[in-house]
Amino acid sequence: MPYDIAQHFRQDLPAPAAARFGGFPRYNFVGGHNDASGVPVDAFVEAASKALTREGRTLATYGMESGPQGYRPLRTFVADMLGRRAGMSATADDVLVVSGSLQALDLVNAVLVGPGDTVVIEEATYGGAMTRLSRIGADWVGVPVDKDGMRTDALAETLDRLKSEGKRVKYIYTIPTIQNPTGTVMSLDRRKALLEVAETFDLPVFEDDCYADLTWADSRPPAIHALAEPGRVIYCGSFSKSIAPALRVGFIVADWPTLSQMMPLKTDGGTGALEQMVLAEFCSSKFDDHVVSMRSILKAKHDAIVEAVSQEFGTTAEIAPSEGGIFIWVTLPEEVDTSRLAAVAGAEGVAINPGAEWSADAASGRRRMRLCFANPSVEDLREGVAKLAEICHREFGVPTRGGNVIRS
Amino acid sequence: MPYDIAQHFRQDLPAPAAARFGGFPRYNFVGGHNDASGVPVDAFVEAASKALTREGRTLATYGMESGPQGYRPLRTFVADMLGRRAGMSATADDVLVVSGSLQALDLVNAVLVGPGDTVVIEEATYGGAMTRLSRIGADWVGVPVDKDGMRTDALAETLDRLKSEGKRVKYIYTIPTIQNPTGTVMSLDRRKALLEVAETFDLPVFEDDCYADLTWADSRPPAIHALAEPGRVIYCGSFSKSIAPALRVGFIVADWPTLSQMMPLKTDGGTGALEQMVLAEFCSSKFDDHVVSMRSILKAKHDAIVEAVSQEFGTTAEIAPSEGGIFIWVTLPEEVDTSRLAAVAGAEGVAINPGAEWSADAASGRRRMRLCFANPSVEDLREGVAKLAEICHREFGVPTRGGNVIRS
Repeated sequence: MPYDIAQHFRQDLPAPAAARFGGFPRYNFVGGHNDASGVPVDAFVEAASKALTREGRTLATYGMESGPQGYRPLRTFVADMLGRRAGMSATADDVLVVSGSLQALDLVNAVLVGPGDTVVIEEATYGGAMTRLSRIGADWVGVPVDKDGMRTDALAETLDRLKSEGKRVKYIYTIPTIQNPTGTVMSLDRRKALLEVAETFDLPVFEDDCYADLTWADSRPPAIHALAEPGRVIYCGSFSKSIAPALRVGFIVADWPTLSQMMPLKTDGGTGALEQMVLAEFCSSKFDDHVVSMRSILKAKHDAIVEAVSQEFGTTAEIAPSEGGIFIWVTLPEEVDTSRLAAVAGAEGVAINPGAEWSADAASGRRRMRLCFANPSVEDLREGVAKLAEICHREFGVPTRGGNVIRS
Repeated sequence: MPYDIAQHFRQDLPAPAAARFGGFPRYNFVGGHNDASGVPVDAFVEAASKALTREGRTLATYGMESGPQGYRPLRTFVADMLGRRAGMSATADDVLVVSGSLQALDLVNAVLVGPGDTVVIEEATYGGAMTRLSRIGADWVGVPVDKDGMRTDALAETLDRLKSEGKRVKYIYTIPTIQNPTGTVMSLDRRKALLEVAETFDLPVFEDDCYADLTWADSRPPAIHALAEPGRVIYCGSFSKSIAPALRVGFIVADWPTLSQMMPLKTDGGTGALEQMVLAEFCSSKFDDHVVSMRSILKAKHDAIVEAVSQEFGTTAEIAPSEGGIFIWVTLPEEVDTSRLAAVAGAEGVAINPGAEWSADAASGRRRMRLCFANPSVEDLREGVAKLAEICHREFGVPTRGGNVIRS
C-alpha cells in the first residue's frame, strides 16, 4: 500500500497534472514553441566551446564571478541591446538575469502583490499572468486593446472606477510590443499616454516585452521603460522567443530598490550558468542577424496560417494579422465555444488555446482562440487548420464552407 | 526624482539585498562552492558539442521532447545512478528535474506547508531550509544529531510533545548522508528507525541527499527512500555539489501523487535545457570516475582545513571531522559568539557561517561555525584560518595559543 501523503497537502493547491507527458499533439497550435530550423545549433556548439574553454572553471562557484544578478557579460549584452533596439539607457547593474520571463512574472508579483490586491491587465492577455494572480488570491481587471495597444482612455476610466471602489491596485501589466494574444504593437503616443495615466494614478507599470524582437518591421517603438522616470517601469524580456524556449533565460530591468527587493525572493541559487554563458557568447556577435533570420521564418509561417484560416474558415473567422511573433488571435461566430472546441479538437490531435483562458473576462473570450504557428511545418499548419475547421463545423455548424468545399 | 515604487511593495518582504555583488571575500569559507580544478571543462565541451549536434533543434520546444518532468535521458541516468549507488528502485517516471535542490525545497514546501504548520528538522541544519519556512510563516523544531545522524529516540519524543501540543507537523526533514553542517552519515539502523517513527506518527519524510555522492567512503548506506513504502519519502539530490554549483540542476524522486501536485507549482517553464543535455551526456559515461576524482580533491582540502583549525585554534576548537562533502562544523568555547566573529572577520575578508544561522535553536549555535573548504586553495585555507584565529583571539581572548605562537 503506498503511503497517503495527500492527507498532508495544503488545502489550496491547484489541480495536479492530469497525466504524464505523452508527446506533443499532432497539430500543435499552443505553447511558445519556436521553429526548430531556427535554432542556431552550430553557433551554439561554437559558443559553448569558446565560453567553457575560457571560463568553465568559474562554474565551481554559484553565480560564477558575477554574483546573484547573473552573468555579467550577458547583462552587459542585454543592456546594450536594449539601448540599441528599445531606446533604453540601462546598464548591466540594472539587469537581473532570471530563469525565463515566467520567473520575472513571479518576482514582480512576489514583490508587489498580496491577497485581495488588484492588477490592471489588457482585456486579452497572457493566460499565465492571470493564473499566477489567481494563485496569490489577487484580482485583475481588463482594459480593451485596439490596433494601437491598450486603450489608455479606458485605462483611466477603469482606474477611476477601481479607486472609487477602494481597490488596492498594484501595477499596470502590459505586453506592448506584439501583444499576447492580439499581436498588436502599441504606438508611441499610446506609450506616452499610458505613462501619463500611471503618473496620475501613482502606479508602477510592468512592461512584458518578451516578443519584442520579433516584429516584422525592422524597428520597434521605444520601450515604455525608455520613456519613463527611473523606478516607474519594471521591464522584462526573454531569449525564449527570439532564440529558443528550452533555454530558460530572461531578464528584468529595474532600478535598485526593486532589484534589491527581488533578489532575496529569487531563491533558486541563480539562473543556469551554461545557458547564460552560451547566450552571452552567441549574442555578442550574432544576435541581430539571428533575429532577422528568425523573423523571416516566422513571417512566412504567419502568412501561411492566416491564409489557411481564411481559406478553411472563410468569412466566419475574423483574424487580426499579427505585427510579429508566434501567434494569431481569431474571432469566430457567436455560436462557437472555443473551450469546447479545444476539448474536442484536443482529443483529435489538434491543440488550440481557447480564448476564455486568454481573456480577463472569460465570457468575452468564449468565441476567440489563439493559434501559435511557429513550431508546426507549413504543411502541418495547413492540415491542422483544415482539421480544426472540420471539427468546428461538426460541433457548431460553422464554417459552412471551407477549403473550396461546401460542408454539410 | 525616481518614482517611489516601494510604496506598493508587500509589507511582509524579507530584507532587500544590501549591496551589489562586489566579488567574493578574500578567504571564502561560506557557500556551496566547489574546487575550480574539479570542473570537467574539456568533457563538458565535448558533451555540449555531441548533445547539441544530435538534438539541438529540440531546444525550439519547451521541455524539448521530454515534457515538464525534465529531459528524459537525464531522468533515466538519475534513476539508474540512484539504483546503483543508493539502492533505490525509481524509474525515469519517478524523477522530476528541478532547477537545483533549492527549488526542490521550495516545491516540497509549496505542496505541504502553510502558515502555522510545523516541520521537524535536525538541530543543526541547512540555514536556507529555515529561512524558507520562516517566509511561509511556518515553525520548526530541531532534533539532536549524533555521529549516526538524527537521534530517532529524540525524534519520537519531539513528535509526541508536538502532538500533545496540537501542532500540525507536515514532514520530517533530514540530510542523512553527509549532514549539513555536522558532516555525519546516518547509519542504516537509524534510517530504519527513522522510518518507524515516521510510520508511528503518520508523517512523510523529506530526504535531502544533495551531498551524498561525496562521502569519503566508496559506498554509502541505502537512501531512506529505498527502505520505505512508496509515497512515504520525497527524495532530492543535486549535481551542484558533485559536479558544479553554477549548473542549476537537481532532482526530486517521488511518486506520482506528489510529483503531479508539484508540477503546476513549478512555474518556471522547465529547467535549463542546455544544462540538462550536457549533464546527461557527460554523466552517462563519466559520472562515477568524476565523483571519485572530486572526492579525492575534497578529502585533501578537508584534511588541510582540519589541520589548520587544530593548529591555529588548538584545543579551544572542537572539530567534528566530516565523512565527506565540503564543510566542517566547529565548536568554540562558551565566550565566543560566532555571529559577532562573522561580522568582524567578514569586514576583514574572512567569511564564515555563524552557527546561529545553521541551528534550529539559534542560541545553541552561538559558539559554533561552519567552514566550507572546497573552493579556497590549500594555501588560502591555511592563511584564512590563521587570520580567523587571530581575529577570534582579538575579539574573544581565544585561542590563546595557535600556529606555534603564544598570543597576548
